[in-house]
Amino acid sequence: MYTITITPRFGEVDSLGHINNNIPSTWFELARNPIIDIFDPSKELKRESFTLILVHADYDYVGQLYYKYDVEIKTHITRIGTKSFTVYQEAWQQEKLCVKGSIVLVHYNFNTEESIPIPEDKKELLHRHFVS
Amino acid sequence: MYTITITPRFGEVDSLGHINNNIPSTWFELARNPIIDIFDPSKELKRESFTLILVHADYDYVGQLYYKYDVEIKTHITRIGTKSFTVYQEAWQQEKLCVKGSIVLVHYNFNTEESIPIPEDKKELLHRHFVS
Amino acid sequence: MYTITITPRFGEVDSLGHINNNIPSTWFELARNPIIDIFDPSKELKRESFTLILVHADYDYVGQLYYKYDVEIKTHITRIGTKSFTVYQEAWQQEKLCVKGSIVLVHYNFNTEESIPIPEDKKELLHRHFVS
Amino acid sequence: MYTITITPRFGEVDSLGHINNNIPSTWFELARNPIIDIFDPSKELKRESFTLILVHADYDYVGQLYYKYDVEIKTHITRIGTKSFTVYQEAWQQEKLCVKGSIVLVHYNFNTEESIPIPEDKKELLHRHFVS
Repeated sequence: MYTITITPRFGEVDSLGHINNNIPSTWFELARNPIIDIFDPSKELKRESFTLILVHADYDYVGQLYYKYDVEIKTHITRIGTKSFTVYQEAWQQEKLCVKGSIVLVHYNFNTEESIPIPEDKKELLHRHFVS
Repeated sequence: MYTITITPRFGEVDSLGHINNNIPSTWFELARNPIIDIFDPSKELKRESFTLILVHADYDYVGQLYYKYDVEIKTHITRIGTKSFTVYQEAWQQEKLCVKGSIVLVHYNFNTEESIPIPEDKKELLHRHFVS
Repeated sequence: MYTITITPRFGEVDSLGHINNNIPSTWFELARNPIIDIFDPSKELKRESFTLILVHADYDYVGQLYYKYDVEIKTHITRIGTKSFTVYQEAWQQEKLCVKGSIVLVHYNFNTEESIPIPEDKKELLHRHFVS
Repeated sequence: MYTITITPRFGEVDSLGHINNNIPSTWFELARNPIIDIFDPSKELKRESFTLILVHADYDYVGQLYYKYDVEIKTHITRIGTKSFTVYQEAWQQEKLCVKGSIVLVHYNFNTEESIPIPEDKKELLHRHFVS
């Protein structure tokens, strides 16, 4: 598990005065950078060599988020399968859980358009963030 | 059920050459305008009078979307409860289902911060888009 | 000159109740699709073969935009140079001009990272949208 | 003048492998939080009491930005008028200037829809970030 801190932007607040519900997924995406970097240490993000595809995401909005305070994003790996794994993430503000979500990433070859096994060394790096 | 057509933007494509996975939720949001309008016919979207809050969203990405072709967004109401309802949405491109998602909206009073029953006349308007 | 119609999204409205100032540039981007298509008829948007790079943008916000009404985006080509051209765009709502902007695109080779002359046939296609 | 650091997100990179040109304006918006806070110390961002409206923005894209490295956003106040002021901002990556932009904010009453003089105490707070 690891944590990053997000400072909300003016434009991320919608007309109801809270963070729009499409925003936390972009914060979660930012918080997954270290996981992307396990699979693409060059950080070049090229279709020819990149090996992750997102196949599922779900979000529970259990509290409202505001512009006023920084947000902590906590990121855990909760499942490591043969060809896919699950990232569980939470957004906290003022010590209150506001959004929780699970993202499933498949290890994938974009050239052949097939899922491929996750190498053992990558699994080991994922395990560092594992929480059962 | 109803359908709207989306033309993808250049900037919605990510470095893998397909539509970034955070984009379909914004298209689904646009496609829900007629549902928002049932609850806020003035379209003023003010916290004092607006009565919907999104509490859950899930997305299954079953195919890749590209810049090249228009996308059809299909919107159904699949559940109408006492204080909440579920919107089921799909994104289709070239007659292929690419993303499907369910969004739960709670009928809500932002002043008292409590869920409130959906009035019968609103339920009836929701029923027009109902698919079991 | 040509016009497209945009229906604003709930999440494009900020806490001041109007369309956030970062949104019109995304609408203008969508409205430039036909111009992108002149230079990349395959619509594949690949770095190896794509030949446009945006080097300047300016926006004047002369009126507020709201969720309530559709927006018309008008797109003109106002300058066609040897290696670059200017696109002038306007956003209108309820017959009121709300945003106007100019975007400079350079004809560019991403492999050599150099600007390159615009071919005559492309210039001719740009001319169809030209307004002096 | 002050500086904040931005870590780019996967989805901010477009199909050309660089940061999409609509992204830096969102980073600049985040970097202007301390300026917003001068005018709205409550950080509530309510139309009834908020007093800034953005009327102009221009951006020069002088270098490409990538996912690979953090970005430094430098923010200066370059003009303080009676009823408006100008914020000049730069995005740097790997010690290379990549985007520079100027934003004009008008001190504004959203209830009467009129520009209003900037109070002296606010001007003084703006002066702390002033660079001629």
